[in-house]
Amino acid sequence: MTYCVGLKLNEGIVLLSDTRTNAGVDNVSRYRKMFTWEVPGDRAIALMTSGNLSITQGVIARLERTIEQAEINGDKDAETILNAESMFRVAQLVGAEMRLMQDTHRASLEQSGAAADASIIVAGQRKGGDPRLYLLYAAGNFIEATEDTCYLQIGEHKYGKPILDRVVTPETPIAEALKAAFVSMDSTIRSNLSVGMPLDLAVIRSGGLAFDVLRRIEPDDEGFLDISRKWSEALREAFHALPEVSR
Amino acid sequence: MTYCVGLKLNEGIVLLSDTRTNAGVDNVSRYRKMFTWEVPGDRAIALMTSGNLSITQGVIARLERTIEQAEINGDKDAETILNAESMFRVAQLVGAEMRLMQDTHRASLEQSGAAADASIIVAGQRKGGDPRLYLLYAAGNFIEATEDTCYLQIGEHKYGKPILDRVVTPETPIAEALKAAFVSMDSTIRSNLSVGMPLDLAVIRSGGLAFDVLRRIEPDDEGFLDISRKWSEALREAFHALPEVSR
Repeated sequence: MTYCVGLKLNEGIVLLSDTRTNAGVDNVSRYRKMFTWEVPGDRAIALMTSGNLSITQGVIARLERTIEQAEINGDKDAETILNAESMFRVAQLVGAEMRLMQDTHRASLEQSGAAADASIIVAGQRKGGDPRLYLLYAAGNFIEATEDTCYLQIGEHKYGKPILDRVVTPETPIAEALKAAFVSMDSTIRSNLSVGMPLDLAVIRSGGLAFDVLRRIEPDDEGFLDISRKWSEALREAFHALPEVSR
Repeated sequence: MTYCVGLKLNEGIVLLSDTRTNAGVDNVSRYRKMFTWEVPGDRAIALMTSGNLSITQGVIARLERTIEQAEINGDKDAETILNAESMFRVAQLVGAEMRLMQDTHRASLEQSGAAADASIIVAGQRKGGDPRLYLLYAAGNFIEATEDTCYLQIGEHKYGKPILDRVVTPETPIAEALKAAFVSMDSTIRSNLSVGMPLDLAVIRSGGLAFDVLRRIEPDDEGFLDISRKWSEALREAFHALPEVSR
């Protein structure tokens, strides 16, 4: 399984992903699910992936290859996610690679009893445009986070959703959104063994056109442990302070 | 969907179920999912059901019919859940009816594209035995709640699980367990439209051999609303009191 969450706020975008993948409970590995590209002053783009690993790795590899080939050939007209005219267009390019991977592999995957499903969160901002947060499906289609629903999740989304629903709005400052993402991830890791540390965290401030934060959070990260511990204590205290139920 | 939760504590058993069923989002109805039988001083038994409604209604109808027929025939040797020698045997009798319903209907249900899956929580105590809490699957097999895992859920279990994991142990007093069940249900109702009010609540105190509480909780129930409101406030306060994340 996987858990990735992206929040689109007025102040910018917060992205958090885990790194656990598994093919059955007896085959657990660690794979990065967050991929980032930055052209400082022009654009910052992040993808977070969920679902069939061969499919999502294929999408990332093909996006990278297109960028490399354009550089090698010195072809400035070749369209890549690094020169696409908008984040919407970036999402379309990712969607095209997703469709290609699905067309190539879905039938044979399903024939052998495996699932080809995959989804990708596409986030970022390019110069002259607004920050954008998309959720892209296996068919290559995508939806965008809006004022009404300003966060998107992929993978095991249920355990970590209630806290987001309660505290996150577009007006939430990035500092608070980071806490919300940590609590949401912490609840998911506690409840689902197939979601696990370390984590990858990225923050893109509105108008920054670069990553403000881009770091791996290891299992012994004091900041994350502190939030996890204090949230546990606070929940228990809040629970015990509730009035007795009238029977 | 459905959400039912049963907690087995040293002090007794707490059971809470919702009443919403749906066949697609455009076909939502209200059906009781908690069924109780009481022979004061001898036994108190409760079933909570989830899954295909025709299957679970069939199980309940057949259990009732066996009881009625034994009464009509004055047949004291006919085994029913009201005279079975143990709660384990009660679970076996429920399991036998479940298997019969599955054998009769599963093939044709699946042929028409419907799911025959169903599960039932079987709870209660009979004179001379301990309180028991079982989760019975579509195959008629069942597991029992233990010291290590003292609660069982059926239906949409994910949203309401984290709070149970954090606060419920066998030592939890019934008064606290009621709060935990309410909070667990409240979180589920907030996150999943297919789980809804009113609720049915039952409490069997250890050794009481009768229902200590057995009542419907309507949407305007002051006790439930109070817990729901105060839990929301407490969560938000606890969240805002968390330290800032080190970036």
